Amino acid sequence: MTATQLFLSLGFVLGATLSSALPDPETDVSALLQYQQDAWNRRDLERFLAGYWKSDDLTFFSGGSVTRGWQPTLDRYRQHYQSAGAEMGKLEFRNLRIEMLGSDAAFARGEYYLTLTSGKTPHGIFTLVIRRFPDGWRIVHDHTSPVE
Amino acid sequence: MTATQLFLSLGFVLGATLSSALPDPETDVSALLQYQQDAWNRRDLERFLAGYWKSDDLTFFSGGSVTRGWQPTLDRYRQHYQSAGAEMGKLEFRNLRIEMLGSDAAFARGEYYLTLTSGKTPHGIFTLVIRRFPDGWRIVHDHTSPVE
Repeated sequence: MTATQLFLSLGFVLGATLSSALPDPETDVSALLQYQQDAWNRRDLERFLAGYWKSDDLTFFSGGSVTRGWQPTLDRYRQHYQSAGAEMGKLEFRNLRIEMLGSDAAFARGEYYLTLTSGKTPHGIFTLVIRRFPDGWRIVHDHTSPVE
Repeated sequence: MTATQLFLSLGFVLGATLSSALPDPETDVSALLQYQQDAWNRRDLERFLAGYWKSDDLTFFSGGSVTRGWQPTLDRYRQHYQSAGAEMGKLEFRNLRIEMLGSDAAFARGEYYLTLTSGKTPHGIFTLVIRRFPDGWRIVHDHTSPVE
């Protein structure tokens, strides 16, 4: 492996700017979530979903409902946010806390806020379980609860 | 360390029966949750809460509400399930899926069902993040959503 290959293989998350030649997993996970927020705000659900594990074993809990698999999760997002009358709004993550669980896993807690053109701000809290794969960090489980 | 000390130090979760001299972390985590279910069904909230990390950094998300710290989490359970007119019911975990995240961390997904004397069965889904401490496995984060 050349120094260039080594450099490219370290800490590089989904096209996010490499912040350091020495990888910091917490920074990588943070970059993943920043990448997702940016994709959402460009209305690019496919790229938003690229942060999730592309597997039938991905699980997505939203309130009391369970979605299994990457494609059904994308379909759910499309239905909720891109069908007639729906609006994606502007997404912001707040109070993000990333905690490492060994070298190849982490979990994140935080709050999401959507700002809609009506001025409404639906929001809630989430728990993410995130694992390191050969091609980078991916969310393997998402549990989100709206705040009523 | 003597063989006896080694035996006692391995795989021993909160008084649960030692299932094997060679520890299996998934079995230990499963035993922790079984221990909690049994404590609940004896109406012993203190022992139920013994499965949680006794720290101010424990977090408990229930629906959209956030509780921080072990003592406030115990207080919340007491208020919800042991105050006047409240009932703990019979607790059952279903469809439990434990996944290891390295040697010292795991996460669990599952469903809880309470059976009340009225015949009602409030239930929901949960995500637990569980870490191994010197004295055993403990839940460090719980995200629970009732199914309405």
